[in-house]
Amino acid sequence: MDNYRFPGEFSPHSGCIIIFPERSDSWQYGAIKARKAFAEVASAIAKSEKVTVLASAKQYDNARRLMPPHIRVVEMSSDDAWARDVSPSFVVNDKGDMRGVNWSFNAWGGLYDGLYFPWDKDDAIALKVCDLLDIDAYDMSDFVLEGGSISVDGIGTVLTTEACLLSKGRNPDLSRAEIEKRVCEGLGAEKVIWLPGGILGDETNEHVDNICVFAGEQRVLLSWCEDENDPQHEVCKACLSVLLNSTDAKGRKIEVIKLPMPKPVYMTKEEVEGLDYCFGEPTRDTESRLSASYVNLYIGNKVVVMPAFGGENEDCDKRAQQIVAEAFPDKEIIPIYARDILIGGGNIHCITHQIPLYRKEG
Amino acid sequence: MDNYRFPGEFSPHSGCIIIFPERSDSWQYGAIKARKAFAEVASAIAKSEKVTVLASAKQYDNARRLMPPHIRVVEMSSDDAWARDVSPSFVVNDKGDMRGVNWSFNAWGGLYDGLYFPWDKDDAIALKVCDLLDIDAYDMSDFVLEGGSISVDGIGTVLTTEACLLSKGRNPDLSRAEIEKRVCEGLGAEKVIWLPGGILGDETNEHVDNICVFAGEQRVLLSWCEDENDPQHEVCKACLSVLLNSTDAKGRKIEVIKLPMPKPVYMTKEEVEGLDYCFGEPTRDTESRLSASYVNLYIGNKVVVMPAFGGENEDCDKRAQQIVAEAFPDKEIIPIYARDILIGGGNIHCITHQIPLYRKEG
Repeated sequence: MDNYRFPGEFSPHSGCIIIFPERSDSWQYGAIKARKAFAEVASAIAKSEKVTVLASAKQYDNARRLMPPHIRVVEMSSDDAWARDVSPSFVVNDKGDMRGVNWSFNAWGGLYDGLYFPWDKDDAIALKVCDLLDIDAYDMSDFVLEGGSISVDGIGTVLTTEACLLSKGRNPDLSRAEIEKRVCEGLGAEKVIWLPGGILGDETNEHVDNICVFAGEQRVLLSWCEDENDPQHEVCKACLSVLLNSTDAKGRKIEVIKLPMPKPVYMTKEEVEGLDYCFGEPTRDTESRLSASYVNLYIGNKVVVMPAFGGENEDCDKRAQQIVAEAFPDKEIIPIYARDILIGGGNIHCITHQIPLYRKEG
Repeated sequence: MDNYRFPGEFSPHSGCIIIFPERSDSWQYGAIKARKAFAEVASAIAKSEKVTVLASAKQYDNARRLMPPHIRVVEMSSDDAWARDVSPSFVVNDKGDMRGVNWSFNAWGGLYDGLYFPWDKDDAIALKVCDLLDIDAYDMSDFVLEGGSISVDGIGTVLTTEACLLSKGRNPDLSRAEIEKRVCEGLGAEKVIWLPGGILGDETNEHVDNICVFAGEQRVLLSWCEDENDPQHEVCKACLSVLLNSTDAKGRKIEVIKLPMPKPVYMTKEEVEGLDYCFGEPTRDTESRLSASYVNLYIGNKVVVMPAFGGENEDCDKRAQQIVAEAFPDKEIIPIYARDILIGGGNIHCITHQIPLYRKEG
């Protein structure tokens, strides 16, 4: 697409988009704690780039009150709060012009295995955001893709998972090769590296951004399960094997930084009871492991904002912070207690979307 | 207020705000024709500046479809479609920094003689627009003022009407001197010229922007009633007398350009029947004259967009266009058939608000 390409998240940003959480079937006890966690994430990111929070008409005043004044709050309706997955993919050319790719969004699987219905407001967000930023949209609305299902190095390589991109709820009539072609068209890429899967139990059909993301050119963070008796261990090993046997779009090796996972995290009975019921949403319980992962972080201009899980994971949290600090020696590492985001089904990367640096008109 | 001042509308703009009409008690037959007229106004203004149309979540798709692609459509809820009156007053300083003055809005008279209830969404728009533009807000929310009740020359002079600014539904506990002081504080002005009233029957308590507006420094357009038997004639004469006996903030004379009014315009029975009923809204009928005036125009960067009424007013329309063309020799005069805006209770100036040229950050 005319030399437009999706820059790596580690490249300079002009800002970040977050959506204010509201659904009482996604966020326990009326989303009160989730909102606070979202505000902490927003504030941390706002230390080095402009943050825009999208809030519904109903929640606008509340969002405005919760967010610090230097964070912009803009009215926009949505079906939930996953900016990563519903934002346009921002692509820039060599002159610095930016446009937004409008993929189709179907709530992670549509009527096949999607997570809620309807999803029309979410699906409309990409074009609304393009309008808000006054940039052109590139139409890929005949192809289902969420931002969390890809990670990009900005020089032609895309990471994704077979579990997600080949799932029956997205583009069932397209072959693997056709899917590669569409993904590369939208993102301005040449090569797709297919990992087999992601974090088990991840409701997104195992988005790549919860298991493996580019931390720079030729460098990925891989969520790593150390317990050999845990089925997740096999998945991580299989991903590692693919990565070690792959090269990037320029034919170069990729360094893998292992980021050990937290100990299994479960919802409490009280938390489960704090969720409203919604037809079609997966039932939460106290026995299903939440898809906790440190890889689900945000790489900001001068900060990396990453999840912490606290409690018996305090040591794991610290070790993960240490590894991330070594991977990003020039950035401040900001851990955010993210249990209340995790309960909603994702984490810090899922609720954010970077806007690359670009040339604004006028 | 720190040398911030409201620039004359005839000064360069960075853009214009319009709100997409929706209320079926303001706009006949589901606002279909009004929307088309609004789109024509937006397109005309967009010939020389960026236009942003604010539309509710419900009407967003429809607005996006009706407005040409180069017009930005942004989601924002409102109680009606009067951008002039609910926008912040944009004030700039010598460095080009801009902020927005957030007045209180109470639907032209609140519970005393306001035009609808509630008006909370309208009242929230000023701060939302400041957020949208990423500019600071200046708090004047303890003072009721609508943008249409003032006209400014940008060098310290404010035109207004006694009928509106001294009305009981706005700031009844403030004296005329106190009102002057607050208006000057917000607009960065030094002098208020009080015209007695505006166009008779104007539901806004006779906003000045329907009878007299600055067309430049030391120059106003005055709506002029030529029929000496018409009660409006006396009002126009009284305004003329004030203007001829006033000087601007710099002590200079003001040239008055008379703009003869159209022949009286009335709603048809069919139009009256096309309005939904809303408790509190003034009843429309076929006998009450609509407050038609050519002064209710928009001064754009390279265009002047002005109302035309057609039918038996075709000659009046042409004469008005001629006079406006002479007043703005460097601008293209674009008449828009505005009957469907007038029926809602205002005209082109009422549904628009200019954003001055300013220095954007980032």
